[in-house]
Amino acid sequence: MSINFVLAPDSFKESMTAKEVCIAMEKGIRKVFADANIIHVPMADGGEGTMQSLVDSSSGEIFEADVTGPLGNIVRAKYGILGDGETAVIEMAEASGIQLVSETTKNPLITTTYGTGELVKTALDKGIKKIIIGIGGSATNDGGAGFAQALGVKLLNKLGKEISFGGGGLKELCKIDVSEMDTRLKNVNFTIACDVSNPLCGKTGASHVFGNQKGATNEMIEVLDKNLLYYAKLIKEQLGKDIKDIPGSGAAGGLGAGLLTFTNSILKRGIDIVIETTNLREIIKNADYVFTGEGGIDFQTQFGKTPYGVSTVAKLENKKVIVVAGYIGNDIDILYDKGINAIFGILPGAVDIQTALKDGKKNIERTCENIARLINLK
Amino acid sequence: MSINFVLAPDSFKESMTAKEVCIAMEKGIRKVFADANIIHVPMADGGEGTMQSLVDSSSGEIFEADVTGPLGNIVRAKYGILGDGETAVIEMAEASGIQLVSETTKNPLITTTYGTGELVKTALDKGIKKIIIGIGGSATNDGGAGFAQALGVKLLNKLGKEISFGGGGLKELCKIDVSEMDTRLKNVNFTIACDVSNPLCGKTGASHVFGNQKGATNEMIEVLDKNLLYYAKLIKEQLGKDIKDIPGSGAAGGLGAGLLTFTNSILKRGIDIVIETTNLREIIKNADYVFTGEGGIDFQTQFGKTPYGVSTVAKLENKKVIVVAGYIGNDIDILYDKGINAIFGILPGAVDIQTALKDGKKNIERTCENIARLINLK
Repeated sequence: MSINFVLAPDSFKESMTAKEVCIAMEKGIRKVFADANIIHVPMADGGEGTMQSLVDSSSGEIFEADVTGPLGNIVRAKYGILGDGETAVIEMAEASGIQLVSETTKNPLITTTYGTGELVKTALDKGIKKIIIGIGGSATNDGGAGFAQALGVKLLNKLGKEISFGGGGLKELCKIDVSEMDTRLKNVNFTIACDVSNPLCGKTGASHVFGNQKGATNEMIEVLDKNLLYYAKLIKEQLGKDIKDIPGSGAAGGLGAGLLTFTNSILKRGIDIVIETTNLREIIKNADYVFTGEGGIDFQTQFGKTPYGVSTVAKLENKKVIVVAGYIGNDIDILYDKGINAIFGILPGAVDIQTALKDGKKNIERTCENIARLINLK
Repeated sequence: MSINFVLAPDSFKESMTAKEVCIAMEKGIRKVFADANIIHVPMADGGEGTMQSLVDSSSGEIFEADVTGPLGNIVRAKYGILGDGETAVIEMAEASGIQLVSETTKNPLITTTYGTGELVKTALDKGIKKIIIGIGGSATNDGGAGFAQALGVKLLNKLGKEISFGGGGLKELCKIDVSEMDTRLKNVNFTIACDVSNPLCGKTGASHVFGNQKGATNEMIEVLDKNLLYYAKLIKEQLGKDIKDIPGSGAAGGLGAGLLTFTNSILKRGIDIVIETTNLREIIKNADYVFTGEGGIDFQTQFGKTPYGVSTVAKLENKKVIVVAGYIGNDIDILYDKGINAIFGILPGAVDIQTALKDGKKNIERTCENIARLINLK
């Protein structure tokens, strides 16, 4: 009977997608075990690369749409439809990410999540029933107001006009009118990939914790926090939903709160969503070895990164987990306790980071070949 | 029954001695196999580090002596006495090496192997019976003339005076007088670690092949080659020894020829000498795994480097060989065919060479721990 490998790596950032990592791993392993059963499960943890990996692992498809960027300009954003044809994967950063603003233009008083709402709308047009949405890397602090507006929610000022975009505009809000909200939202379930537990407001809230990295000064942070508090108050008064203290409502400048308010949604850790969506636990039941990996691995890996998630599931099935990484940081001993059996660096020598990124595939291949050689010695 | 490891690495140049590599390897392995039997056999291949490794693997001792450097100045040189108390290990480079001359002072017309002869004399004073001599890295092209002079051989010009030092002085030679040669040489056997097969003279001889790197111009090379040919002629005529075409006689600027002329000596590949001296084949008979390694490994490793030598012996005993290296070069596939079972790089990420050299021990330890973890999965 031939040996079974399940390859479930994350992407290697700036070097390889998770699928490319799988292919390189397989090339290495096949040099030793030509007849092995090798299953690819490109993974992710809810962060960058999640859309690509979920599409790749389900044989889905990537689409593009022109949507409103955080500053009101048009940006081209990707989204994915999984192989089941009914699940969309959206990364808010594609439409409303911090990488879309510059050091000089970043300003959470005016940046909007409108484009993320447009992406959802575009996905709804394709008849999907379920949306997985990753909300990391936002440039915004608007509580998901723009997101709601794009889906037909009217956020009106005292003159009955739409409020301005951004965390600054929320102070104008008087009336939240959901009467013309996209009716398709009623029949769609959102799973929000969220690894933070910050509430919407206060010292541990969106504005205070993440405002600075989005370009807010200390004075702006006070305004932003006050506005979100006001926004939450109106939501509670007018829609009867008390979202401001829900852990995760403060994620992505309060897009968490917006999603919880206007959609049927649940928050989950990104890695758990990916494990569920890929059906990883079922797939590894027959594995002799599970290979995973990520560009970098260190003690933080235990806080929900892919190699940790894969090892947790693998441990439930009593499987052996081997990790490869481009960078191995300090204090990795904790990872062995968490079920990772062995960790190998892939670099062939003292090389600069550009060379390391460029040679990722051949380094993965060589390292996995040698791991397979060692396995074959048994 | 506990598992048996034999650790037989070379040094990692500019980072760790072979013994230090053994210690780091053991630390890593013991984290997984606390009760393992682990034997250290610090290795070398006849090049730099050979003295240190042979001393370390035999629990011998390193000594120092002030001797004549290649340019006639005094240099402090190390030599080793092995644990048996009767074998000395000498590296000619310690006394007569290219690192002892500068870019501007290197000149094989005048550089001498006299200091290497003095080192041998010092070792003889300690009552040793056998000398292992590594002859790589010489600054000289004197056919071992200086070496002979230091041991009492009179190399006289037509006036009955000692000829000048260096490859240039040989043209003055008229009479080789061995009557006052150190009589202890009769009872000592030399084993010359030599990985080149160049004859003393001609286009593939010492002067033409290595003269340039020792500072000889093309004109000087012609002179040097002519002088060595003349020297060989006198040796044949006056001592009855025909050494000029013996493969290896051209090693180290003809020190090979000098040793063959004036001592009881045989030439062997460096790695073979070290394998023999360390008794490696016997030691690995009980090994479950043999670990070896070197700072760098590539396709050239098959031409007599330590990991290749260790794997060759291990293969005779049907043992598993695992290699770790700081640098993995191209075309290493040939090494698998030669009996190396698996090769792992030790670096944890894209680091500069200084960091790589500095962190050698912890990188060896982490890598060997993870190899042991993989072995332990069986």
